[in-house]
Amino acid sequence: MKVVITGGGGFIGRKLAERILAQGSLTGPSGQQEAVTELVLFDAVAPPDELLSDDRVSAAIGDITDGDLVASVIDASTNSVFHLAAVVSAGAEADFDLGYRVNLDGTRNVLEAARAATGTPRVVFASSAAAYGGDVPETVLDGTPITPETSYGAQKVIGEYLITDYSRKGFIDGRAMRLPTIVVRPGKPNKAASGFASGIVREPLNGVAMACPVTPESRMAIMSPRTVVDCFIHMHDLDAEKLGASRALLLSGFSVSMGDTAKAVRDIPSNRAKGEITFDIDPATQAIVDGWPKTTLSERAAALGFPSDDNIKDVIAAYIEDELD
Amino acid sequence: MKVVITGGGGFIGRKLAERILAQGSLTGPSGQQEAVTELVLFDAVAPPDELLSDDRVSAAIGDITDGDLVASVIDASTNSVFHLAAVVSAGAEADFDLGYRVNLDGTRNVLEAARAATGTPRVVFASSAAAYGGDVPETVLDGTPITPETSYGAQKVIGEYLITDYSRKGFIDGRAMRLPTIVVRPGKPNKAASGFASGIVREPLNGVAMACPVTPESRMAIMSPRTVVDCFIHMHDLDAEKLGASRALLLSGFSVSMGDTAKAVRDIPSNRAKGEITFDIDPATQAIVDGWPKTTLSERAAALGFPSDDNIKDVIAAYIEDELD
Repeated sequence: MKVVITGGGGFIGRKLAERILAQGSLTGPSGQQEAVTELVLFDAVAPPDELLSDDRVSAAIGDITDGDLVASVIDASTNSVFHLAAVVSAGAEADFDLGYRVNLDGTRNVLEAARAATGTPRVVFASSAAAYGGDVPETVLDGTPITPETSYGAQKVIGEYLITDYSRKGFIDGRAMRLPTIVVRPGKPNKAASGFASGIVREPLNGVAMACPVTPESRMAIMSPRTVVDCFIHMHDLDAEKLGASRALLLSGFSVSMGDTAKAVRDIPSNRAKGEITFDIDPATQAIVDGWPKTTLSERAAALGFPSDDNIKDVIAAYIEDELD
Repeated sequence: MKVVITGGGGFIGRKLAERILAQGSLTGPSGQQEAVTELVLFDAVAPPDELLSDDRVSAAIGDITDGDLVASVIDASTNSVFHLAAVVSAGAEADFDLGYRVNLDGTRNVLEAARAATGTPRVVFASSAAAYGGDVPETVLDGTPITPETSYGAQKVIGEYLITDYSRKGFIDGRAMRLPTIVVRPGKPNKAASGFASGIVREPLNGVAMACPVTPESRMAIMSPRTVVDCFIHMHDLDAEKLGASRALLLSGFSVSMGDTAKAVRDIPSNRAKGEITFDIDPATQAIVDGWPKTTLSERAAALGFPSDDNIKDVIAAYIEDELD
């Protein structure tokens, strides 16, 4: 079967590709596990060489706003699409038009291409807990009203409604998951407002000092890269009937304070000298983070067998194992 | 001030135009009532001559999916837009692509044109109780989850999120209202699944027999044309701060059964012979109507001073006064 990952050059896209290649199969058109014979990584940037060295993998480098290109990549023979490509939160806020082009028009290109496929492709869409904003409760539940207060959040919510409507019409077999903040992201710090939540682990373990821009008491809803990849695979393979009419699902993110995260980093055994963690409050970042959910808790996801994490120590240990050792 | 009504050739658009012309003013850029000096009715069809005979009125006839045309009608000098143009429920369900072109791309054209205006136009968007579907409670309240189960409903909900996001960015001063079923619509029966709810009043009063396709026990959430026009004006003139972060508001529709409606039609005094009302159940229509809310009840709308109707007799009497006498 042929699988396409949009945003396949990004961090989660690459992790997901590695997992699919390692397990070798996904639920296919037969409803049974079928061998993945073709995995296309679609992104504006090239995927790493180690992924491309696998015979099953090819890269499609280009712009998701180019409908013809998207249709040539997600072609008639495509069985499954993981749609992760997006302009991130801060980017969509800084450039309104770019955000709508990529996150809305790009998503419509993906859906139209999947609709044109010979079969009825499974399409798994990465939505976001940015669907919740404003007077958001400390714990976001399945029934919490959808009130995005960023353009990114609005674009993700619109994508969910499109996924549900295209699925209802039988054009695709779509599913959307609202992701909590994914921690720990490797690599360089990015401009996302949530970037510090990874940086507070990553930088000290790299021997670099880290100034956390929010208070030690500040809490966030967290999921690890390993678990979110598990969730993507689980969502793909799920019988969509179990989702009911709405194809969008909240994922559970456990709550951790930045103070507890700092302590866990300091406590974890390491051969290397760790960078120091200080708290240097940036009022703008603090205000943004104060408006985010502290926990996301989906009984629906749990009942459907979706995994979640439950403590920061295990998340840090997995990061060391996956990215540093 | 310059006001544009999209869908200005339709039934509610025309009623709204008449009201604006009669009262002569709306809240303008000053925050005070200002004279409406220019009222443009934008539609695929020409408005009636009696509206065009008013010096303040002009018609723009064309396609809302034509972005250049929309930008030329909603030009830099535009102060207010009422965006009513849409492919209706059954139409958007029958032609998926047309529905998205008109109801989503058309709405984006309107928002982009308003964004490009010199000031910050007020944009009042006609959304719909079709935002609610599936396992919808008998009484839809302000907090009821948004679960459209038609493409029309999905498109309206997406429009609401766009209205809120464009407003949050300060590009427009937008507001959206979720309309219950509007009864009594004059003119010929249309293909909307809800058409019988007007037909059961209109046809007998025209001396024509009416076969109602749903049971006498079937109930719907109803608002009269007079009241919905009041709501459009009230929403336009409202200080948007009062709406809070979400610019979308449910309107209250009272509940009436088709049996009680039939009785009210038979009882109301009339000089003319009335057509007979029978009940000839169409299972497909019955199934659709059974999935609709029986009542929509918005405490938020009431607190903000939005009017609502409360009985079918008054609605019928108003119809006779406005459309027949």
